[in-house]
Amino acid sequence: MQEEIPKHKLDAILVGHLPNIRYLCGFSGSAGLLVVNDHEAQFFTDGRYTVQAREEVKGARIRIQNGKSAFAAALDWLAERKRIKRLGIEAAYITVADRDVLTKRVGRGVRIVNAPPLIERMRMVKSEDEIGKIRSACELGSHLFDTLAEALKPDRTESQVAGQLELAARDAGADQMAFTTIIAGGKRSALPHGRASVAPIPDEGFVVCDFGVILSGYCSDMTRTLHVGRPSAEARRVYEAVREAQQAALEAVRPGKTVGEVDAAARKLLHKRGLGKYFTHSTGHGLGLEIHEAPRVAAGQTEILRPGTVITIEPGVYLPGKFGVRIEDTVVVTETGCDILTKCPKELLSV
Amino acid sequence: MQEEIPKHKLDAILVGHLPNIRYLCGFSGSAGLLVVNDHEAQFFTDGRYTVQAREEVKGARIRIQNGKSAFAAALDWLAERKRIKRLGIEAAYITVADRDVLTKRVGRGVRIVNAPPLIERMRMVKSEDEIGKIRSACELGSHLFDTLAEALKPDRTESQVAGQLELAARDAGADQMAFTTIIAGGKRSALPHGRASVAPIPDEGFVVCDFGVILSGYCSDMTRTLHVGRPSAEARRVYEAVREAQQAALEAVRPGKTVGEVDAAARKLLHKRGLGKYFTHSTGHGLGLEIHEAPRVAAGQTEILRPGTVITIEPGVYLPGKFGVRIEDTVVVTETGCDILTKCPKELLSV
Repeated sequence: MQEEIPKHKLDAILVGHLPNIRYLCGFSGSAGLLVVNDHEAQFFTDGRYTVQAREEVKGARIRIQNGKSAFAAALDWLAERKRIKRLGIEAAYITVADRDVLTKRVGRGVRIVNAPPLIERMRMVKSEDEIGKIRSACELGSHLFDTLAEALKPDRTESQVAGQLELAARDAGADQMAFTTIIAGGKRSALPHGRASVAPIPDEGFVVCDFGVILSGYCSDMTRTLHVGRPSAEARRVYEAVREAQQAALEAVRPGKTVGEVDAAARKLLHKRGLGKYFTHSTGHGLGLEIHEAPRVAAGQTEILRPGTVITIEPGVYLPGKFGVRIEDTVVVTETGCDILTKCPKELLSV
Repeated sequence: MQEEIPKHKLDAILVGHLPNIRYLCGFSGSAGLLVVNDHEAQFFTDGRYTVQAREEVKGARIRIQNGKSAFAAALDWLAERKRIKRLGIEAAYITVADRDVLTKRVGRGVRIVNAPPLIERMRMVKSEDEIGKIRSACELGSHLFDTLAEALKPDRTESQVAGQLELAARDAGADQMAFTTIIAGGKRSALPHGRASVAPIPDEGFVVCDFGVILSGYCSDMTRTLHVGRPSAEARRVYEAVREAQQAALEAVRPGKTVGEVDAAARKLLHKRGLGKYFTHSTGHGLGLEIHEAPRVAAGQTEILRPGTVITIEPGVYLPGKFGVRIEDTVVVTETGCDILTKCPKELLSV
């Protein structure tokens, strides 16, 4: 990254997005800023993180001013650097208010420039070490499937099922969940983002279960849709269509393909089955240190897949007022195709 | 709020901060935008939220364009509104990148202006209904204390203890946790933000336990520091100092006082005990729909407390490499002082 900075005619970049900071220097806390130039880096945090910064931060000098926020400390430092004439910022993350404060503080001598997404581009292709960590997170996540099949009983609420899953995740050593667990049963399965609620698991119907863990900082993401009781013919037909669409998208994943082509593969199959208009979201997203990161696997997106890119493949069909089905895997792009990291059964399972 | 818009010479405000959207129109999903003028409101979301928006949104017209993000849909709509000449934005939340896209899209005819924090000001003083919800969340949170005292055993990891707590929260009907549960034992208790890790609960020493739930959208926040085994004289001394500091801050909370004075009350006590330099964060923060919202209860802050404001009071002392202690309550400002919503014992408890 330091090699890239002068190429973009920048003297330094102010990095405020915490996953980018973690990627670059290892800090995993919730408040920090990094200033990187072509040969060194300064890490700013506040007094709460004195010990943690010392333990975690590599390759950057740690700067803490007691009683001051990381941002205030970084501004103090930047205001005194006379050599920084062009300072890059992360336009996708810094707020307008913070940029206004920054601009005022560094004065007229410094030009504030939107930096290109250098770190996001680096993060899109994972190292062997990162893939290993995501693989471990996905193994832990997949392992929770048994707990799930066990916990899904009509005498429980969605939230209690989520609680069982989360306890099992922690028992297995997860840092935490990667996002708010989705357990959505019956009509609620038609809500693509139906966070586990106090609604009871239905006596009969689909339950969409979408969950992920964080292990060593890296995320897993998986969805399985189980059925309580005997599925109707319509339920079977929709389930099989989603499963075929997911398979079609998985088969489209290989180096050189665009993410838009992967999305199109799933969408085309569902259109053929007359269900296209009920697939109301994109096919997937990158993941790693964040549960959603580049690339978006969506219609018209032109990002080209490269070995080491990790994405989800998660088509779904949602019939409002009736039910919904989604099947999702996390996969890593290999030299010849992809490797599915969430190895769990995908046939229609009745519990 | 609609009355305020013309006073600030704005034709409309673009609201993108999700808790603000929830406060204004009830939508609780993870993608949406609201455009409010002096007599109507438009709510934009994407296809995933068709059903949920219909169920939740009040007082705004719902606009969804299939295959488009909420932001893209809002831009399309704004670009056609010829009557909007001055559009307010939430400078504290919108990113520089999004503002750049917005500016380009609406064209030269529209002036983009940083709006004052109208919604944050409204949210700072809670309604009776909101206080009732926060009270219920805090009751649920307090109720978890028994689970905690039970679960804290040296044969468990911090993470397993957190899992037990979270399962109990879900069993009791919580929507989800309000933030990543902090369970930090032994030397880790000196990390003010020590998220539950795979470290085992120590045979002897403090364990800082900081957790909160969300119930009906509103947060609770509470910290108790328990001791495993027999506390040393130093441990007792530090614990009592933190407890006195917390009490001093609680007594400083009443209408007309500034939040800075509340912070000073806790800080002064710890200085007197020679522990001032180990209190490395601010005394508290507002909470409601968000776990951190206005006002900050910090040194030098001049916001004046009013009845209905809900804040945390959470001084702590952290001795790096040794141990830490924090005691936190959520309180609501009343006409004459404050009401503690997290009613749990605060004497030094050995488990």
